Amino acid sequence: MTTPLTTWVPGAAGSHFDVDNLPYGVFSRAGEEPRVGVRIGDLVLDLAPVAAAEMLDVHHVFEERTLNALMAEGRAVRSSVRRWVTGLLTEEPERDLVEPHLVPLADVTLHLPVEVADYVDFYASEHHASNVGRIFRPDAEALLPNWKHLPVGYHGRAGTVVASGTPIVRPSGQRRVSTGSTTGEVTFGPSRRLDIEAELGFVVGVGSELGSPVAHDDFADHVFGLVGLNDWSARDIQAWEYVPLGPFLGKSFATSISHWVTPLEALDAAWVDLPGQDPEPLPYLAPTAARGLDIDVEVVVNGDVISRPPYRSMYWSPAQMLAHLTVNGASLRTGDLFASGTISGPEVDQRGSLLEIGWGDESAFLADGDEVTLRYSAPGTAGGRIALGEVTGRVEPARA
Amino acid sequence: MTTPLTTWVPGAAGSHFDVDNLPYGVFSRAGEEPRVGVRIGDLVLDLAPVAAAEMLDVHHVFEERTLNALMAEGRAVRSSVRRWVTGLLTEEPERDLVEPHLVPLADVTLHLPVEVADYVDFYASEHHASNVGRIFRPDAEALLPNWKHLPVGYHGRAGTVVASGTPIVRPSGQRRVSTGSTTGEVTFGPSRRLDIEAELGFVVGVGSELGSPVAHDDFADHVFGLVGLNDWSARDIQAWEYVPLGPFLGKSFATSISHWVTPLEALDAAWVDLPGQDPEPLPYLAPTAARGLDIDVEVVVNGDVISRPPYRSMYWSPAQMLAHLTVNGASLRTGDLFASGTISGPEVDQRGSLLEIGWGDESAFLADGDEVTLRYSAPGTAGGRIALGEVTGRVEPARA
Repeated sequence: MTTPLTTWVPGAAGSHFDVDNLPYGVFSRAGEEPRVGVRIGDLVLDLAPVAAAEMLDVHHVFEERTLNALMAEGRAVRSSVRRWVTGLLTEEPERDLVEPHLVPLADVTLHLPVEVADYVDFYASEHHASNVGRIFRPDAEALLPNWKHLPVGYHGRAGTVVASGTPIVRPSGQRRVSTGSTTGEVTFGPSRRLDIEAELGFVVGVGSELGSPVAHDDFADHVFGLVGLNDWSARDIQAWEYVPLGPFLGKSFATSISHWVTPLEALDAAWVDLPGQDPEPLPYLAPTAARGLDIDVEVVVNGDVISRPPYRSMYWSPAQMLAHLTVNGASLRTGDLFASGTISGPEVDQRGSLLEIGWGDESAFLADGDEVTLRYSAPGTAGGRIALGEVTGRVEPARA
Repeated sequence: MTTPLTTWVPGAAGSHFDVDNLPYGVFSRAGEEPRVGVRIGDLVLDLAPVAAAEMLDVHHVFEERTLNALMAEGRAVRSSVRRWVTGLLTEEPERDLVEPHLVPLADVTLHLPVEVADYVDFYASEHHASNVGRIFRPDAEALLPNWKHLPVGYHGRAGTVVASGTPIVRPSGQRRVSTGSTTGEVTFGPSRRLDIEAELGFVVGVGSELGSPVAHDDFADHVFGLVGLNDWSARDIQAWEYVPLGPFLGKSFATSISHWVTPLEALDAAWVDLPGQDPEPLPYLAPTAARGLDIDVEVVVNGDVISRPPYRSMYWSPAQMLAHLTVNGASLRTGDLFASGTISGPEVDQRGSLLEIGWGDESAFLADGDEVTLRYSAPGTAGGRIALGEVTGRVEPARA
């Protein structure tokens, strides 16, 4: 741990958005185009004019409507921009230049921070996969045979990844009366089992070449940072449609991500060993890549914290997910988003979906008007804690 | 049928790329930027300079590197551009202006025509789904219970949709010794069961609003046209990974599409009734939408036609696939691509995958160096036949 730097920004020191955090987002003021900002305390630093005034050679990346151009610059620029911003916010002589470009959060609109290229969702929590297996397949082994050999994942719909705060219209679709049922009447209507999945998302900055796998050691060269992610799920639609090609309409109506993207460097103090992997993974998923992140999640429904999933309890690591995703030669693009899958810990009060919390009971699912917020925090590099971007969404009734 | 127009373009009249076809693509000449062209005979009409000379108000859409801007203009512009191009190529007085902008196909490079937003693959052939069911689950019903109630589909990887001609590197991955096996040693290496899937792809021009389904009647307002599509598949990787979330690395290494996008108007004479749907679909998949396309497919491996799948034999229609894809409120974007799934007819010589052609036998799959071409043709509006864009790819050895 280095000696903590102290920011001159009023109210930021000691908060969860101190200078050891500094997540990026896209904001706009009334009548202005969206552009890139960084959060400090309850303020947004408008980076474009400051970068232009200081003649930063990458100043144009801050004038964009998404973080993609910044993210595409790669790891070295990500680090040097972070050092530059840290200097701006901690060195008193910079204050005269910078202070006019600090905007209260209350005065801005925040936008979807990333133009999402491909969205992949994994299924990397053993507790979640086991719970779902027990609920949907009570007479079989909780985990399927492949589960401990590879991080199971699938592609989701990139075009319906929305920013935190976007209303979630209850989806309609086909379902049979009971979840998992394969007999009985097929009906159509609004989902009766609208659920959440508390997840973390990883955003790719630097792409890769088609035909060439990305090694797990190159994780930080490709991944820019993390977002909070709620993979809204309609369990009744999903249960009826998902064989044999996987979830489709049960998921594709909306996936919410946080406004703020936390750069990897802010999580340097959060890496921990995973609980353990048995059998030992194949070499491309090497055990040395089995490092997780000590991120605490809170699931808040209508203001009440109903669960506290711990991300450190995951089975598969972020670097293993990335290595798996590309081992067949699939290329990465700037803006690719891959998510952890539901984060569920071993305890009952650590489950990351209402399906698990209510163990399949229909009354546990979301009602119209319910508001769900996912909050995330982690150890910061200065000895305290940092907050990752929260994700919120309110359920609107199905449209006629 | 209207009286056929006659083109003045040498060699085009009576060919499969006559003025009743006119597919769009993206081409470049040496040292120039890619831009939009239309194919006539064995020539490409360079649209940008002609549109500028004629002061067409949408001339800028032809200067783009993809068809997305043209496609986003919508159905009315699509129709009027087609009328304008038809006039250019059939009216003798236009010849002096147009002829200098006709470029031989041999002198151009063709590119991926569409910036793909989301890629969805369906499973809409009853013969294919039944064959696969019999091969993978010999002791169970060939079709799963949901199959005749909804067009089963899933999201694929948009970032690895490549243009016809792109080499296909044999993917490596995890698999168990026999396809479908759930016991035995897990190994890693190059796929031994590299396959094709002969499909048609539908490209979305006009997007839709999140939360609002697209009715099947609005198909032609949203879909711009068709591409040939080969959904390369590694069956051994797929068989091991696909439960419970569907195909992932067994598909995501590459999906090839044709250089040419055939606009819907060129297929006006190709619509036919589908073979029939029982049980009657739910209203949003209304029977009136069960209209298919009489498109003949040829699967050519190393120069030999090995199969002739008929697209008219599909169970689910394009309009039903689109209605299903959006019924949960999922939005469309310009550049969305949705595909039919493997086209297999009822006969042995009409199967669209090597898995079916060889009935699971390992020797039937692709060897390094094999070249696969899919060819498509349909009745044109002038009484003859038109060719849709062909898709070709050659297998390269796995990388070490």
